Amino acid sequence: MNIAILLYDRVTALDAIGPYEVLSRLPGGELQFVAAEPGPVRTDNGMLALVAERSIEDVTSPDVVLVPGGPGEVAARAGDAVLGWLRAVHERTTWTTSVCTGSLILAAAGVLAGKRATSHWLALEELGRLGAVPVSERVVFDGKVVTAAGVSAGIDMALALAAKLAGDATAQAIQLGLEYDPQPPFDAGSPGKAPIAIVELLRARSRFAHSPKSTAGTAA
Amino acid sequence: MNIAILLYDRVTALDAIGPYEVLSRLPGGELQFVAAEPGPVRTDNGMLALVAERSIEDVTSPDVVLVPGGPGEVAARAGDAVLGWLRAVHERTTWTTSVCTGSLILAAAGVLAGKRATSHWLALEELGRLGAVPVSERVVFDGKVVTAAGVSAGIDMALALAAKLAGDATAQAIQLGLEYDPQPPFDAGSPGKAPIAIVELLRARSRFAHSPKSTAGTAA
Repeated sequence: MNIAILLYDRVTALDAIGPYEVLSRLPGGELQFVAAEPGPVRTDNGMLALVAERSIEDVTSPDVVLVPGGPGEVAARAGDAVLGWLRAVHERTTWTTSVCTGSLILAAAGVLAGKRATSHWLALEELGRLGAVPVSERVVFDGKVVTAAGVSAGIDMALALAAKLAGDATAQAIQLGLEYDPQPPFDAGSPGKAPIAIVELLRARSRFAHSPKSTAGTAA
Repeated sequence: MNIAILLYDRVTALDAIGPYEVLSRLPGGELQFVAAEPGPVRTDNGMLALVAERSIEDVTSPDVVLVPGGPGEVAARAGDAVLGWLRAVHERTTWTTSVCTGSLILAAAGVLAGKRATSHWLALEELGRLGAVPVSERVVFDGKVVTAAGVSAGIDMALALAAKLAGDATAQAIQLGLEYDPQPPFDAGSPGKAPIAIVELLRARSRFAHSPKSTAGTAA
């Protein structure tokens, strides 16, 4: 089974690395990081480079494709190369997946037209504008398309996908290997649970806010 | 505030990237990936390279140091360069931290002598042999030393640390930005919760098992 994770400039690292850490442990899984141009890819905050080993041109039929999010998704969905590649590989994938605002790239490629899908909570409206049916759930399956909510949701999605690909016992063994028994120190991980002032702060700072605002800070 | 995350050959990526994704969002945080030799560092499964921008020689007084785990910890704790660096920077850090089997490296450096600390559940005995007082908890604070359990526990640790460094509201804003509202599809993330057969499978495959076994597979 061939798994391709797309990288692009200003990607959010955990969107890609959470699912990688799960899916790379599937028996017989071959996982590759791909980009329009192979080589180091700088993440959203500029503090890290991940290396894309292969060009998307060289990876033509992955069984699973995963599109992470991050502020660089804007440029990624403005570029024909990535969108054309996604449209082409989606024809043959077993699963086409995204994390966070990676779903906006899938939507721009036309893959989510009329499909139930999710994204970072701040990007759900934008997802709807791009033709998907936005759903405020952590992991959304619609046919062979699987989308996850913001950043850390990719871990939950990948475990659900691992169960589909290799069975519940294998997914549980991976979860135990990663000691994924989450105990966040706060219950503030979704807009319905966080203090309202913090929700509004992130909404105001978001690049998806209606008025022009800085894209810096903690928001998507 | 200067944060240094140590990389080394055969590190487990999520051990480093989970905390990076949290700590890089701290206001005024400057985060760097460091290694004995700067350049691309290959992760445990060989499928990914992360780039260490700086040599440990050039980073002499980080406020926070974080040591991730992975099978490469064995070589890391056999090398004087990394252990000497950790001993030296620990003198001046505000927080000295580890994820998963990164605590074995801290222990080998002498930083955990007599201290309460944790590690991947499969590595707790080894941690005790190296002079720490092993504790089966997800995140353990002992003075300025903070250790996290296996792989994914680094996210919880980093949020707890973010609260110490910048206050609860900032930590909650980061959590909401990462949409960290975990919903694992199974409740199998710790040895007390996973099916016993799966716990025994991972124990048998572990490189910490008493009889020589393969280091392949999903275990630590």
